[in-house]
Amino acid sequence: MVRIEEEVLEIAKAAKEAASKLAQVPSDVKNKALLAMADGILSRRDELKEANEKDVRAAEEKGLSAALIDRLTLTDKRIDEMADGLRQIAALPDPVGEITRMWRRPNGLVIGKMRVPIGVIGVIYESRPNVTADAAGLCVKSGNAVILRGGSEAINSNLAIAGILQEAAREAGLPENCIQIIKTTDRRAVMAMLKLDKYIDLIIPRGGKGLIRTVVENSTIPVVRHEEGICHVYVDEFADLEMAINICFNAKVQRPATCNAMETLLVHSKIAPQFLPKMCAKFIEAGVELRGCERTREICPDLDIKPATEEDWRTEYLDLILSIKVVDSLDEAIQHIETYGSHHSDAIVTDSYQNAQRFIREVDSAAVYVNASTRFTDGYQFGLGAEMGISTQKLHCRGPMGLEDLTTEKYIIYGSGQIRE
Amino acid sequence: MVRIEEEVLEIAKAAKEAASKLAQVPSDVKNKALLAMADGILSRRDELKEANEKDVRAAEEKGLSAALIDRLTLTDKRIDEMADGLRQIAALPDPVGEITRMWRRPNGLVIGKMRVPIGVIGVIYESRPNVTADAAGLCVKSGNAVILRGGSEAINSNLAIAGILQEAAREAGLPENCIQIIKTTDRRAVMAMLKLDKYIDLIIPRGGKGLIRTVVENSTIPVVRHEEGICHVYVDEFADLEMAINICFNAKVQRPATCNAMETLLVHSKIAPQFLPKMCAKFIEAGVELRGCERTREICPDLDIKPATEEDWRTEYLDLILSIKVVDSLDEAIQHIETYGSHHSDAIVTDSYQNAQRFIREVDSAAVYVNASTRFTDGYQFGLGAEMGISTQKLHCRGPMGLEDLTTEKYIIYGSGQIRE
Repeated sequence: MVRIEEEVLEIAKAAKEAASKLAQVPSDVKNKALLAMADGILSRRDELKEANEKDVRAAEEKGLSAALIDRLTLTDKRIDEMADGLRQIAALPDPVGEITRMWRRPNGLVIGKMRVPIGVIGVIYESRPNVTADAAGLCVKSGNAVILRGGSEAINSNLAIAGILQEAAREAGLPENCIQIIKTTDRRAVMAMLKLDKYIDLIIPRGGKGLIRTVVENSTIPVVRHEEGICHVYVDEFADLEMAINICFNAKVQRPATCNAMETLLVHSKIAPQFLPKMCAKFIEAGVELRGCERTREICPDLDIKPATEEDWRTEYLDLILSIKVVDSLDEAIQHIETYGSHHSDAIVTDSYQNAQRFIREVDSAAVYVNASTRFTDGYQFGLGAEMGISTQKLHCRGPMGLEDLTTEKYIIYGSGQIRE
Repeated sequence: MVRIEEEVLEIAKAAKEAASKLAQVPSDVKNKALLAMADGILSRRDELKEANEKDVRAAEEKGLSAALIDRLTLTDKRIDEMADGLRQIAALPDPVGEITRMWRRPNGLVIGKMRVPIGVIGVIYESRPNVTADAAGLCVKSGNAVILRGGSEAINSNLAIAGILQEAAREAGLPENCIQIIKTTDRRAVMAMLKLDKYIDLIIPRGGKGLIRTVVENSTIPVVRHEEGICHVYVDEFADLEMAINICFNAKVQRPATCNAMETLLVHSKIAPQFLPKMCAKFIEAGVELRGCERTREICPDLDIKPATEEDWRTEYLDLILSIKVVDSLDEAIQHIETYGSHHSDAIVTDSYQNAQRFIREVDSAAVYVNASTRFTDGYQFGLGAEMGISTQKLHCRGPMGLEDLTTEKYIIYGSGQIRE
């Protein structure tokens, strides 16, 4: 036990040292390293697949679900995508050193805010091995040393990816230890890591509720959470019906397993009789299981709509299932979203200027939409480039967490001898 | 025990409800309320002093130090200042609703970032009762519901201040429970509060190391820490000697008990023989106790300079005591600051463009100065208006925490029917 804690401590100390060096590395060196990392992934493809096969075999032996095994598997396409992701990160602008504001005080002091790396970031994740490359790439680009801790089911794949990245980074001239991975799958390593606030500046947990709760409850290090998305589309009484059908269909069906997919549809009672029969028929045709409130079921008596329970309004299905509720006002819609939602992504479809503005102002979610699908909540779609996930907390950053969100701002002050009176 | 925990839970729930209403209150209503709160403080001065006297008497009976009793005492001047502080907050621009950026995507989506209140903020503080008014004022202005928890030694004063503020706020039309105070001095109330991440969005501890450590170790809620300042001034070999003497003297002597006062002076060895004798004599004349490295003591053999120990470099004196070290290079100075400092405020005095730029870039502190006193690290001095303290952590905000830092940004997206391909 002591040994694991000591190992994690050594890793954290080495990361801290690497971070202060990496913070000073110019963009072109970091970009060169990222491209070398991408090349490494491609040229050592066979090695990766071999390691991945061990994980897949172990998962099959353990009887993991087909979906989990699919997420775990590194196909050629996924290996290509990992390399592409690193190249894309190389192409993004470097946020480090950017002066976001600068102003002059009456006493002549010139004060500015400059983006600098956060320092050492611990990323704790589950399942998909590609996170190893994405997280390392984003951290390197933003000048942060990273400590990776993947799930045990992908340990061989993760170690292989990290090994390739480390070698490429070192050869390209990045400081030793700026990318590290925890080699043991022992959970005590995570617990030890979460207490090292002296060396680690930020923990990003990516995974299920259980993982995130464990991290939040045990970490003395600031955490940026990436939690569930119970997203809503509200079809207002002044909605364009065709637009509403397109948006709702896209928000539910285009990729239902993502956190920005719609889970609950809210419809104004005045428009429900025209809207719901068409909409529901289209959903059912696409294989969506519908669970409606009483009024929804009354409006569509001939369609197969199960009764929705209180539990449905709080459920992130991540599947082709949708709950539907008829409401009598914008207020009721907002109230429902605030009560049952997860403050992730919520949309209104309306042609009313006033209702659009009220929805934007009053819905307290990371992303609030007018007349667009919630599926756009994503770093690439927002134009931020790659993302480290989607923050569902309010501190530090909310919504897609891009490179800028992996930095912090320090004050810089240029004087000419000023002293305080 | 259950009772205290239930009470705190009720307070937190009520705060959450108040927060969603307060977030929608227009600036002029909030400003009117702040002015009414200031008036209340002034018009009920006798009531305040009476409550404060109870605290002072109890402190005297407990044998608290004269300094602590002084901090606790509400003089007429301090009561005036509390009211002034609230008026100044009323005069500041409201950060809520500000759109900090807005851009258009190739698909026509218009995406912006809008400042919104954080929600519910818990402020846990010690000693000075004026924090009750400052914290409540800043939270109200930034649209956040606040839960105050002051130190037991000031409980009567804090309750009296909070009572006046609550009444004024209610009469001015602010939502019920947007300002709440925990009435018990039982520490279990703090412990209960720190676990309520479902209702409280941010904890700000203001006080000694012990308090902050307790909060960090027990909170499941994000924390913004306001910790110690071990601040440095580095006098470079290319410094203007007179400017260096003025800045160092100001940084140490003008108000030594503050977190932005200099605790360690670093001097380049090439300039030390001209600079140190004059500087040290001036410090000694002002009653500053000096603790120097060996070379400092050799350069000033006739002055009373005690030998500095390793412990000195890590000490925040908050008093007229200064440690001094001679270094041989800018690198050594930066290395010392990074090793022993607290990343609060650090300054270089130099006329070298290159050294100034390197210091700005490489010193990883909340405020990095060229040719100015570290004493300027302060919300008012930076032009932010009032401040909630000075954050010494990297997440969310660093340095003086002003009204903007009491908000978070949500994404707002204006579409015209866009769906994701």
